[in-house]
Amino acid sequence: MTSRLAIAGLALAATGLSGCVAAVAAVPLMAGAQVVKTTQDGKARKQSKREKQAVPRAGDVYVTEDGKKAQVTGLTALPPPSGAPTAAAVAPGKVPPEMQFLYGSGEASALSLQAYAALWRYLHDELRFRRDKSQISSVVMTRDSTLTSPKFDTCGKRPLAVVFDVDETVLLNLGFESDAARRGPGYDQGRWTRWEETGADKVDAVPGAAETIAAIRGDGITVIYNTNRSASTAAFTIDALNKAGLGPVTLGDTLILRDDSAPSGKDERRWKIAERYCIVAMGGDQLGDFSDLFNAKDLSTPARRNTTGNTLIAPLWGRGWFILPNPVYGSGLKGGMDEVFPKDKQWADPAEEKK
Amino acid sequence: MTSRLAIAGLALAATGLSGCVAAVAAVPLMAGAQVVKTTQDGKARKQSKREKQAVPRAGDVYVTEDGKKAQVTGLTALPPPSGAPTAAAVAPGKVPPEMQFLYGSGEASALSLQAYAALWRYLHDELRFRRDKSQISSVVMTRDSTLTSPKFDTCGKRPLAVVFDVDETVLLNLGFESDAARRGPGYDQGRWTRWEETGADKVDAVPGAAETIAAIRGDGITVIYNTNRSASTAAFTIDALNKAGLGPVTLGDTLILRDDSAPSGKDERRWKIAERYCIVAMGGDQLGDFSDLFNAKDLSTPARRNTTGNTLIAPLWGRGWFILPNPVYGSGLKGGMDEVFPKDKQWADPAEEKK
Repeated sequence: MTSRLAIAGLALAATGLSGCVAAVAAVPLMAGAQVVKTTQDGKARKQSKREKQAVPRAGDVYVTEDGKKAQVTGLTALPPPSGAPTAAAVAPGKVPPEMQFLYGSGEASALSLQAYAALWRYLHDELRFRRDKSQISSVVMTRDSTLTSPKFDTCGKRPLAVVFDVDETVLLNLGFESDAARRGPGYDQGRWTRWEETGADKVDAVPGAAETIAAIRGDGITVIYNTNRSASTAAFTIDALNKAGLGPVTLGDTLILRDDSAPSGKDERRWKIAERYCIVAMGGDQLGDFSDLFNAKDLSTPARRNTTGNTLIAPLWGRGWFILPNPVYGSGLKGGMDEVFPKDKQWADPAEEKK
Repeated sequence: MTSRLAIAGLALAATGLSGCVAAVAAVPLMAGAQVVKTTQDGKARKQSKREKQAVPRAGDVYVTEDGKKAQVTGLTALPPPSGAPTAAAVAPGKVPPEMQFLYGSGEASALSLQAYAALWRYLHDELRFRRDKSQISSVVMTRDSTLTSPKFDTCGKRPLAVVFDVDETVLLNLGFESDAARRGPGYDQGRWTRWEETGADKVDAVPGAAETIAAIRGDGITVIYNTNRSASTAAFTIDALNKAGLGPVTLGDTLILRDDSAPSGKDERRWKIAERYCIVAMGGDQLGDFSDLFNAKDLSTPARRNTTGNTLIAPLWGRGWFILPNPVYGSGLKGGMDEVFPKDKQWADPAEEKK
């Protein structure tokens, strides 16, 4: 991943809500004497039987003296009040759909296997048989590149290397995300640091990653990880990579971490690696794993998406740049209605409009 | 897509909730005289000033006579009471992360471009130069196959074809999903039918699909769509495909729809196509677009995921079978905590455990 940011607006405001919940539950409980119980079938016998129950049950519907309906809730949490962020509120303990997809589905596994198969074919079938490897092109955009005018150097005498991101590219953070699913929305940097330090055995390799990385090394190509994981927890990251079958790595040579004071952008580190190696392929789950230009602040959500397909960048996907699926977090999870769905493509159910 | 089912548990129970909401809002409104207003800074002047306000504002915190705290809410909807399904409750009008990813991100666009590039390379670079095309293998599993023992026929004299699913494989249902995002969770078959009938101009091609499909046809290979869209709305689906640049199609030959009485499985239709054509590649966003065996009822979520990588199926991804990303709906969005996150990989933040 390029940077591990909280998805904007997912944090739940916790203060004051318990009082609000108590108030909801309290309506039928405290006002028991003043309400008339109704049921959908309206049978008197059933009604009187249930009125004797001391404790109303979740789902019971009451009518108050002033004619309003009230339903007993079993809620233990509420969405935050207006004014507080309200985006997603998946009940804690339920696995949100994007996590079911990435960590639980065969579909996401197949996407990863497909990406690694494409990477392997590119390296093994296309590059290996080139007689003059010095004419092979690096896939790192040069400093004077733009997204509409990407430029690349040839390899010269530098040894070949493949550069991967770590999180959700070669390594699945199963433990951290299981905790996040149980906890509900919201991201905490401190928790991520504790995860790096204590979760080394709660990870798994992305499907296809370990086998492909071993095969790349077998072909004599160096594998380098360029990650925003912190330099201060290096030993734990090395441990996690080894336990997932993705090692061995050498810190500072084949494992490049982020200094805590350094920016999250990866271009500078890529260019530094490119001084020593010819980077012939890159793998990542975020566009920032390929170029920081995708994260320019003035690039709108639709423009960012368009650059991947409508520029000279397009032919790189599956041919030097290899992307892994990650709908769970990251810089791609942005945009309101009109940015995600072009205005001229929005639709409203005609049956609803008639009402 | 293989079958367009509501994601289990997303439907909101609407009845009775308006009363519940009224009760929440009513606490501070009706009990205005009996509560003492508190503020975090505790300045008396500010407090008295705000007490004069006739209408409490969202976020205001009150303390009731019995010492409980109550916060004014601006909520207009609540999650359903316990007992009703509670999975996801994204505020309507906010775009949920899985939709931001699929329809709005450059990452998903890149995944699609990568899949179509792999498909093109497979057809154009690998199959086109085969001298004896009768020895090319079909990629449709034969009737006597199992997931652990997949079997394939050779092509013989049949002409080559590529079979695609339609929805979220070649066509993005931008209009329908914009409506779904505005509306919040819940799927309605009637709404989908109205969408098929009225949304033909509110779609777009999946990135890479239109160009690749045109190129496949240019290579003399037939393109066939095998979809669960209804036969009764055929004209609208043809219209949508044409408008997205994915046509032309011939109903019953290169566009195979589902009869309303027929099951959602696609194997029978695949085998029928395979009588006339040699299917050398398939594209889909659901495992059921490749074989119905993935949807066997006795296949657990983890087992289903494992079959994609740990069987003889694995080499097919990117080499005959091409999968497109879709974390928004479908048969991959299943599983509770222990199915999505293996028990031995679950983790809990040690800082929280100490509390």
